[in-house]
Parts: sequence; structure tokens; C-alpha cells
Amino acid sequence: MAYKAISLKEKYSLFTKQWAPKVIAEMNDYQFKLVKLVGDFVWHDHPETDEAFLVIEGTLRIDFTDGAAVIGPGELYIVPKGVRHKPYAENEVKLMLIEPRGVLNTGNEGGLRTAQNDVWI
Amino acid sequence: MAYKAISLKEKYSLFTKQWAPKVIAEMNDYQFKLVKLVGDFVWHDHPETDEAFLVIEGTLRIDFTDGAAVIGPGELYIVPKGVRHKPYAENEVKLMLIEPRGVLNTGNEGGLRTAQNDVWI
Repeated sequence: MAYKAISLKEKYSLFTKQWAPKVIAEMNDYQFKLVKLVGDFVWHDHPETDEAFLVIEGTLRIDFTDGAAVIGPGELYIVPKGVRHKPYAENEVKLMLIEPRGVLNTGNEGGLRTAQNDVWI
Repeated sequence: MAYKAISLKEKYSLFTKQWAPKVIAEMNDYQFKLVKLVGDFVWHDHPETDEAFLVIEGTLRIDFTDGAAVIGPGELYIVPKGVRHKPYAENEVKLMLIEPRGVLNTGNEGGLRTAQNDVWI
């Protein structure tokens, strides 16, 4: 039997909506989510968990209250739990997030930017 | 302050030894590990956890008792816990593994292929 790998490129081709994470796989109680984004997000944090950002295409900046991280293609960044941050991208970024199932994109901030959770593609 | 992202390319340039996972980051109690590998590994499983394989360069085959998965660059595969598998690569593969801290590369099989765990780079 041939078991099929999950192609990130193929999955990205299936959606255009930005700031709306799509789950592509689960490992135990963690999820792999693809996101397309551009512009400014809201300040938020995740009090209960770290969050892993792997940039696939483009350049993501994550602002912190005392500085920023610039993350290019093939680069990984872990935002520690409880640390306030605000993603920003001048041009569209293709990002993979890895975090526990159930984490909302805006943490506890709520608001218009809060995406529906656990949407698979 | 400038916070530094982790470049996979830069980290791969720091080692040549194959089948020896190097930890580059932690998210909660999970680790991101880079591995270079070629040839055949041993049959094993991880009774306690799923294991995520993200191929960065090259083509990895994972043999199962009833088939195989072929995983190319930019492709992800999750081996479910308890499923016996044997990685194989004809040419060198650069792989990122994501799994809980403490998981041994050979599961409970032991043997010469068992790499030192929790080696950071």
C-alpha cells in the first residue's frame, strides 16, 4: 500500500484566505497548521503554550514589546508561552504553525481577527 | 532587541554525521531535531508517541509492514504511535523530526544505530 505524504505546496494551493489557519496534520494532541498572511495582526499571547513558527515563503516579522524577530524562508522561531507578540508581514507570507490542538490564533484577545479553529484542509 | 530566528540551513552546515539527530529548538516538551541520513535504518516503533517527519532536502522512504510512504522536499508525514517503520534513503536526506523530548531514534530496539539523545546544535 502507498501511504501519501502531505505536500505543503499542494495544501497552500487549496486556499487564498489570509489569517485563517488550516490544519493539515496532527501529532498526538498537536496540530500542524498552514497560514497565509500579510499586514498587521493583533497583539496577543498564549498563556498556556509555546507556539512554533516555520516560515515556508516570504519574510515574517514578529514584534515583541522590547524588540522583534525577522524570520525568513526555512527559518524557525518559537514564541514562548505568555510572551506578547504581534506578527507582521509586508508581503504575503506562507507560514506553518505547530501548536497544541485548541489554540486560538488571537489567544484570549478575541476580536474580528479571531479565526475559526480546527479547520482542516 | 533583535531576536534571532533559527536557520535550518545554517544548522545543517554545522554537522555531517548521519543518523545522529541534533536538537535545534523546543516547544513545550516537544523537540525539533535535524537529521542527515542515507541508506537503511532499523525497524522500530515508538509505542508512546506519534512522530512527525518534515523532509527539507532529498527523498525519504518510510517502509511499513504493509507498504511505504515516499516523502519529498516540503512534504510532511506523521508516523502514528506504535506503527513499525523503517526509514530509507537512496541519497542523503535532510530531515526535520518533531517529537516529544526523550524519544530515542530506535524506539525500544536498541543496537548500534541508537543515537545519543538530546544533543543540541
